[in-house]
Amino acid sequence: MAPLRTQWTRLIRFVAEETSRVHIGQPIDSALDVGYASSKGKPIKAFEIVGSAFDPSAQVTKSVLTVKTLLSPLGREQIKIIRCLGLNYTDHAAEIKAAKPPFPILFIKPVTTLIGPNAPIIVPRVAQPVQEHQPDYEVELAIVIGKAAKDVPEDDALDYVLGYTGANDVSFRKHQMAVSQWTFSKGFDNTNPLGPCLVASSAIPDPQAIPLKTAVNGQVLQDGNTAEQIFNVKQTVAWLAQGTTLEPGTIILTGTPKGVGFVRNPPIYLKHGDEVQVSLGSGIGTLVNPVVEENYGSKL
Amino acid sequence: MAPLRTQWTRLIRFVAEETSRVHIGQPIDSALDVGYASSKGKPIKAFEIVGSAFDPSAQVTKSVLTVKTLLSPLGREQIKIIRCLGLNYTDHAAEIKAAKPPFPILFIKPVTTLIGPNAPIIVPRVAQPVQEHQPDYEVELAIVIGKAAKDVPEDDALDYVLGYTGANDVSFRKHQMAVSQWTFSKGFDNTNPLGPCLVASSAIPDPQAIPLKTAVNGQVLQDGNTAEQIFNVKQTVAWLAQGTTLEPGTIILTGTPKGVGFVRNPPIYLKHGDEVQVSLGSGIGTLVNPVVEENYGSKL
Repeated sequence: MAPLRTQWTRLIRFVAEETSRVHIGQPIDSALDVGYASSKGKPIKAFEIVGSAFDPSAQVTKSVLTVKTLLSPLGREQIKIIRCLGLNYTDHAAEIKAAKPPFPILFIKPVTTLIGPNAPIIVPRVAQPVQEHQPDYEVELAIVIGKAAKDVPEDDALDYVLGYTGANDVSFRKHQMAVSQWTFSKGFDNTNPLGPCLVASSAIPDPQAIPLKTAVNGQVLQDGNTAEQIFNVKQTVAWLAQGTTLEPGTIILTGTPKGVGFVRNPPIYLKHGDEVQVSLGSGIGTLVNPVVEENYGSKL
Repeated sequence: MAPLRTQWTRLIRFVAEETSRVHIGQPIDSALDVGYASSKGKPIKAFEIVGSAFDPSAQVTKSVLTVKTLLSPLGREQIKIIRCLGLNYTDHAAEIKAAKPPFPILFIKPVTTLIGPNAPIIVPRVAQPVQEHQPDYEVELAIVIGKAAKDVPEDDALDYVLGYTGANDVSFRKHQMAVSQWTFSKGFDNTNPLGPCLVASSAIPDPQAIPLKTAVNGQVLQDGNTAEQIFNVKQTVAWLAQGTTLEPGTIILTGTPKGVGFVRNPPIYLKHGDEVQVSLGSGIGTLVNPVVEENYGSKL
């Protein structure tokens, strides 16, 4: 086995000014936090990448495009499944007074949850008043699988990883506490920001040293590091691939560090008009998303 | 809103003798249990259906094909997501001494779990000896969504249902009991038989009167009826569609009646060489699947 090779190191997906079509590219400024810049309306230029994110021969060209609208680095149609771990940080397990799990705790989110940078996180009106949903933020490192993995030893597991990006596993605590399984509470449309950059695994040789933060309206509420993960990236990939094919296009959200809203005193929940920033290091960057409560009026 | 209309009433998918390609069709013998017949090697003939299961104009033709290999009525590529309810029968909740849930309990299975009639249920070698997995059977009614549903009232919910089929939600109890979320234990490749017939919703006006059974090596172990569901089909569809798009190609497994293996005294678990039959009424028919323990030898 050999690690996956890509010609790009940081991949973004965007609608370009020049063509009004969706392209992929690599930011010209290798130090730029593309997600933060785009949220401030700053111009972003990228070298066009020709090919698919999953194609090892996809080339970074000299052709320069200007970002009109920054999108998630992979589109819904490229993503097969979103697997997620719960309770995967020692500091988060401690803050919610949960035992350290003996094995990775897996759940799955629908692909219809996905949104990109700057898109609104929608708080739906679901069977009870919106303000009672208790929507909460969770910054997470997301693994992107690039090659089918099944029954792979831990030591080879990183060879199947195309790269890493960021995610906000927005969770509606009222629903999460109502029943044993978390899927409904974490599965609403347009509640899972992903991005902004997909950083090639070759550019992140140690995924256990990535800082990750959440700020709501500028106030830092999570400030952790993937070093605190209970099951690290290679253990996670190897565990999930037991008897199970992780197809290319599988996303794995790897859990959140301490600082979530619902265990604070008083609790902090997301509300209409909030701006949520989740930021990851190693060139992944910041997802900035406004919170919008859907108002169905008299429909329900 | 109007119910979905189809030209077919019972749809099967198969490789045809005549062409060696995959076709869809409607069995000529409207009373035949196609799944049971195919497991016995009995000849099955079908009128070819031209079009897709999701296309309301797909026509049942006069062209007759012979089934060589019966497949699940929908292929993996046609299925967007498999949503599943847990604890949805009063008699099953009682047998496992669980409280009746206040809301539907949702989890998701990967599409890679799917297999068709007669295909082996694979018991993988996962981090512990195979015989300790405690693989168990669960007969279930599966709803197939044919039209995008989001925020639909209960009274209209059946209008989004294309039809119904059968499923066996094979569950590995050892893993299910090890952590809080059920996804890993119900997510292994090739552990989710689906079929044999997709019966049009127009042919099942009342989905709350469908008998469903499991037999292992001929011994009947589950013998229930969808009348025992805690959340009926229309409540389930309406609940799951809250704030969430159920795309065409969504499968919803609706829970299992009493009789599962792990609460028996002594417990009954599936083992290599077993033959599992799950049978549903209303023309859906019987899924017959052998159990095969995967042997990785010295690989793990």
